[in-house]
Amino acid sequence: MPPPSQRIGAEILCVGSELLLGSIVNTNARWLADQLAALGLAHYRQQVVGDHRGRLIAALQSASRRCRLLITTGGLGPTPDDLTTEAIAAAFDTPLEERPEVWADIQTKLVRRGRSPSPTVRRQALLPVGATLLPNPTGTAPGMIWTPVPGFTLLSFPGVPREMKAMWEATAVPWLRQSGLAQGVFASRILRFWGVGEATLAEQLADLLAGSNPTVAPYAGAGEVTLRLTAAAADRAAAEALLAPLEAELRARTGTACFGDGDDSLASVVLAALRQRGQSLAVAESCTGGGLGAALAAVPGASDVFVGGVIAYANAVKQQLLGVPAALLREHGAVSDPVARAMAEGVQRQTGSTWALAVSGIAGPGGGSPDKPVGLVHLALAGPHGCTSEGVQFGASRGRGWIQTLSIGESLNRLRLALG
Amino acid sequence: MPPPSQRIGAEILCVGSELLLGSIVNTNARWLADQLAALGLAHYRQQVVGDHRGRLIAALQSASRRCRLLITTGGLGPTPDDLTTEAIAAAFDTPLEERPEVWADIQTKLVRRGRSPSPTVRRQALLPVGATLLPNPTGTAPGMIWTPVPGFTLLSFPGVPREMKAMWEATAVPWLRQSGLAQGVFASRILRFWGVGEATLAEQLADLLAGSNPTVAPYAGAGEVTLRLTAAAADRAAAEALLAPLEAELRARTGTACFGDGDDSLASVVLAALRQRGQSLAVAESCTGGGLGAALAAVPGASDVFVGGVIAYANAVKQQLLGVPAALLREHGAVSDPVARAMAEGVQRQTGSTWALAVSGIAGPGGGSPDKPVGLVHLALAGPHGCTSEGVQFGASRGRGWIQTLSIGESLNRLRLALG
Repeated sequence: MPPPSQRIGAEILCVGSELLLGSIVNTNARWLADQLAALGLAHYRQQVVGDHRGRLIAALQSASRRCRLLITTGGLGPTPDDLTTEAIAAAFDTPLEERPEVWADIQTKLVRRGRSPSPTVRRQALLPVGATLLPNPTGTAPGMIWTPVPGFTLLSFPGVPREMKAMWEATAVPWLRQSGLAQGVFASRILRFWGVGEATLAEQLADLLAGSNPTVAPYAGAGEVTLRLTAAAADRAAAEALLAPLEAELRARTGTACFGDGDDSLASVVLAALRQRGQSLAVAESCTGGGLGAALAAVPGASDVFVGGVIAYANAVKQQLLGVPAALLREHGAVSDPVARAMAEGVQRQTGSTWALAVSGIAGPGGGSPDKPVGLVHLALAGPHGCTSEGVQFGASRGRGWIQTLSIGESLNRLRLALG
Repeated sequence: MPPPSQRIGAEILCVGSELLLGSIVNTNARWLADQLAALGLAHYRQQVVGDHRGRLIAALQSASRRCRLLITTGGLGPTPDDLTTEAIAAAFDTPLEERPEVWADIQTKLVRRGRSPSPTVRRQALLPVGATLLPNPTGTAPGMIWTPVPGFTLLSFPGVPREMKAMWEATAVPWLRQSGLAQGVFASRILRFWGVGEATLAEQLADLLAGSNPTVAPYAGAGEVTLRLTAAAADRAAAEALLAPLEAELRARTGTACFGDGDDSLASVVLAALRQRGQSLAVAESCTGGGLGAALAAVPGASDVFVGGVIAYANAVKQQLLGVPAALLREHGAVSDPVARAMAEGVQRQTGSTWALAVSGIAGPGGGSPDKPVGLVHLALAGPHGCTSEGVQFGASRGRGWIQTLSIGESLNRLRLALG
């Protein structure tokens, strides 16, 4: 074993063959990662192993040589494939002993649920000699807090997210703070960008991305790029004080490409700007089929700004509900600036909205032509002072969903920029 | 290094500080786990490490001593914190070299997107000497297939799920089969259910869920429940022969609750049934704001059945575009059977569609009342022989997105059942 000083940070070990079989997504790891960050506990590795005694012991032993704190989840239940407690004891050559208070608690809980305590369930009352009980207020499987070797502590939790979270909050957090393992805090902030690629942003901000505290990390989604700013400090105020000037610098350098932060979406930002002006918005959608409206309706309270609109998927609907002239459709085709403009103006007229967005394009995989390939989308914006439209080429290679998602974002972004 | 025979199975290594910070859920690991199982590749461990050169190298080296196949995701991008390729080369003491064909491909892709290739991006053309290119058909970051030491092969993928999946299917799967690493097969099949809870389904099928080969595993999504049937056998035909009678039994027991299999969605199933009858569909949406239309438009080729409709978010739009009488809105309120029916009949009349679906409800968090609480949604279905509507209570506790998603699914499911 290395001396305590060589071990650093925290690790997470999730136990369960269902994770290896792809049956479920590992949401526990994400939740715990978030919690560790909030406590200022640096966290360097996550592992998943199946319900296999040998591999579980190997994973525990290797973690005990690397980190100061190991959080395990899963494998505390009553069935024969629940091996975590037994493997923990074996990994550190320690016998198990029954804790009478745990067995009493299990019996009480089962009787309350109308079940009879079985010998199988009694296994859950075993803990390694020397380990501290980490009580489970709701379920029957308790965890442990144990320092089997100096400088290395492990906390075990059940895999059921609800039980794990309750135990984390009730016992683990106070213990981590009191033990001194959780010193200081990490504060982090998300900035959100549209209309700039991850690579371009990274070049433009290369010097800031090289910083070590605070750090800036880019992440590319579908059209949207985010930057995560993270600072470590003794307390929240000090961490925030490190973030504030960095955020100001990032916003100054990136200008209008930065559309928001935190949980903002393009839709929420556009709705807030319109709300402030007392203006309203309608949509006319062809290839997005309602997705632009759905993005707006996803924001709580959208209804005081977003009035609705028309899903003009078929040309007949464009004519009937939006008054797009048949001649315009014949002459230019549905995917064209004149038709997109007529759609935006039509829905603006029909609903009396201040602003209107229209989308007409070819989402594919079929329907493309040499003149109008898959991925070509015309986006129109009608406002109080007229209507503009532009054709954008999103490319065919990333598929229908991608083209629809980018059309929605690009359309909202045009309105955002128009609202300045 | 141990002799090749001591290494077993596959491991997954996901690279990205965003996973350690809890910013995103590791859905890639689950998807890959699923894929490995389908190929009959036993998979014993998953790891996540951050964008840290030293820890990445340590994780690569330790995996190379344990497993025969390592799949890495993430860290192939152009930014300075993308370190995977460099760490892989360093872990096995091998220099990097630029691949001219990769650099040419990157330049072509960037020019097509209207961006100029920068020196930063050029890093993505580097691969370790001796590694085989794993082409990325859509993005600029290629992966590699490399056997740096005898008996250990690694495949690297970008972290962007769409790109990873495309590369896995186009190149990795054929390579794994041909290399002999994927021996024997797991065949699996997904059955999809709507209108029955996971617990009810599990009780009803308890005997089948207890089987060991084939296995049946339930999974609950938002409203939808899926069963995954998996069989292991020497070849595909033998595995399929195990699945066929199980699937037949499951379908017989569950009746109309099973709406499809594989990649089916309620929308795709409804569109296929209407296509076969040569019938059309329109929608009138209030609280879903376009989401029902978007679910239909997400299906390639939807346009020959789905004509569009009206997003009647505001009451004025319900009157103006759907002809819902003001008196009906006054008397019953927008969230009521009479108004939902008038919406469905209005959009059916306006578009001339055979069928129409209408949704009017309270998605919350605001807008509820004792009479009409958050989560109450009225769903109307107009067809060739009249129109029906029903109020459904989805509950407020799981939030706005949940209510919208369930409204969309329940609405489509009603049409599915009507089409019998």
